[in-house]
Amino acid sequence: MHIAITGAAGFLGQRLVAQLLDRGELDGDAIRRLTLVDQAEPPVVAKEGVEIRSLALDISTPGALDPVLEAGPDVIYHLAAVVSSAAEADLDLGMRVNFDATRALLEGCRAHGLSRTRLIMASSVAAYGGELPAVLDDMTALHPQNSYGAQKAMSELLVNDYSRRGLVDGLVLRLPTIVIRPGRPNAAASSFASSILREPLNGEEAICPVPTDLELFVMSPGRVVDALIHGAGVSGEALRTFRAFMLPGITVSVAEMLEALREVAGDEALARVRHEPDPRIEAIVGSWPARFTNERARQLGFKNDKDFREIVEAFLGERA
Amino acid sequence: MHIAITGAAGFLGQRLVAQLLDRGELDGDAIRRLTLVDQAEPPVVAKEGVEIRSLALDISTPGALDPVLEAGPDVIYHLAAVVSSAAEADLDLGMRVNFDATRALLEGCRAHGLSRTRLIMASSVAAYGGELPAVLDDMTALHPQNSYGAQKAMSELLVNDYSRRGLVDGLVLRLPTIVIRPGRPNAAASSFASSILREPLNGEEAICPVPTDLELFVMSPGRVVDALIHGAGVSGEALRTFRAFMLPGITVSVAEMLEALREVAGDEALARVRHEPDPRIEAIVGSWPARFTNERARQLGFKNDKDFREIVEAFLGERA
Repeated sequence: MHIAITGAAGFLGQRLVAQLLDRGELDGDAIRRLTLVDQAEPPVVAKEGVEIRSLALDISTPGALDPVLEAGPDVIYHLAAVVSSAAEADLDLGMRVNFDATRALLEGCRAHGLSRTRLIMASSVAAYGGELPAVLDDMTALHPQNSYGAQKAMSELLVNDYSRRGLVDGLVLRLPTIVIRPGRPNAAASSFASSILREPLNGEEAICPVPTDLELFVMSPGRVVDALIHGAGVSGEALRTFRAFMLPGITVSVAEMLEALREVAGDEALARVRHEPDPRIEAIVGSWPARFTNERARQLGFKNDKDFREIVEAFLGERA
Repeated sequence: MHIAITGAAGFLGQRLVAQLLDRGELDGDAIRRLTLVDQAEPPVVAKEGVEIRSLALDISTPGALDPVLEAGPDVIYHLAAVVSSAAEADLDLGMRVNFDATRALLEGCRAHGLSRTRLIMASSVAAYGGELPAVLDDMTALHPQNSYGAQKAMSELLVNDYSRRGLVDGLVLRLPTIVIRPGRPNAAASSFASSILREPLNGEEAICPVPTDLELFVMSPGRVVDALIHGAGVSGEALRTFRAFMLPGITVSVAEMLEALREVAGDEALARVRHEPDPRIEAIVGSWPARFTNERARQLGFKNDKDFREIVEAFLGERA
């Protein structure tokens, strides 16, 4: 089993690599080879019996991935992306990395005859938008209200069409908001969703810029990696007529998130969250859908977090 | 008022040109200039007071439309496309003409500052597919099962995103099956839908390859051209959060189509239709959705044909 990963230096990529090396197998086959790709060489941890290559490549350049694809990987995780704020600030950059690179990867798979390679791409809840119903299902149209979401939605269509034509065996997983991310607050509108838990748990102050009745659709980093791994074993036939769908997050209000913080870490931790409304952030995050039926994902065996408390406890467990 | 039209040599393009010249105005402004573009120079009919240019251009070449866009057209009709059977047979050709050319056109509008230019693109019922509900609405997801539909759906997302960013004032109209097309039967799976009317009305035999209870979602060529013209006057604000939707066709069974033929032209005409089932054509055409609510289109003032008999009579009237 040879696995290639784009965006392997990122937060999710690094967690996926660690999990794969820990398991030692994917879909029942021993992992013999791992090819990690990112703009800068992804960090490598040696593991006996696994040949690991780490490559710095600009995957938006046509043919850049040829050396990887020539080796005929069995599974490709395509995680490389420009995040939503950057794609909104620079249309050309977003188109090049989020769309053209996906197209180049698909063309590379076609050119190298990788019709049986399982290509797993990460898409996003940001692909949804506009005038949405209260609860979304697998037939809800994608009307993205940001360039990142539009580029992901276009890539989904392309992965589906190349798969339908038998040029690759694609699968696209739309990710909920990932909570709790490690690290520091950043410029992402959703940054607070991790920050209001992470900082108080670390004994620091955090700012909550949205009303506490605001709902989010969230998934823990651990469950997202589980989904990426599970996706390698889902048959193309089971994916039927469309290869992209939303992963099963859970719906939580900010109030419920803060209550879980209090339960796990006490009133002292909760008191570290300052409420400073920011209408700009509320407008962006409030436009993201928070309720999904997730029928397809469940039928295909993808699992959600049990509840928000489990997410907080998992974060504490990993930090320990 | 300067209007540019790609695909101007095609069936719809030619009807649109004739209608525009006949009206002499669009959205209340006198038409002073018409730029017609196609692979081969579109036919030109002179009209006093209107400067008409006819250009042979390969619009999939970046910059090919620069001479047209430099002049700052007020309205652009983007009708150029590779049809579904050709796009399915040649993925590269379909991507180049149906997607890359749309992207190049949007980039051209951006480069030339045409933020107020109304760009009207034709999309198709073929963008829908997969496991569809019995009646589709404006929030039904696009899960195309053919490359033509995928390329149109991708182009829709791009037109929407460029419009949202204020780079152009886009609008995408998804066309029903157009009936009755003039001319001869062709390789399109939907060819019979025109043929079983047109040939008997012309005193010739026709073959019906599908069961008579099969339903189609159809629109007359006249109503499609009306919709293209109406689209020029719909404000960007009224289009709200997504710039693409289905035009209001009417749902008819093949039996109803044949009954309209009998009413208008008698048993003699009906007897010219031979029933020779073709499972391949039934499979393709039977997968197209036939029932839509068309709420958005109706709210925006787009009109459907009254009934199928009107469609047949319009065809006879034009032929006369």
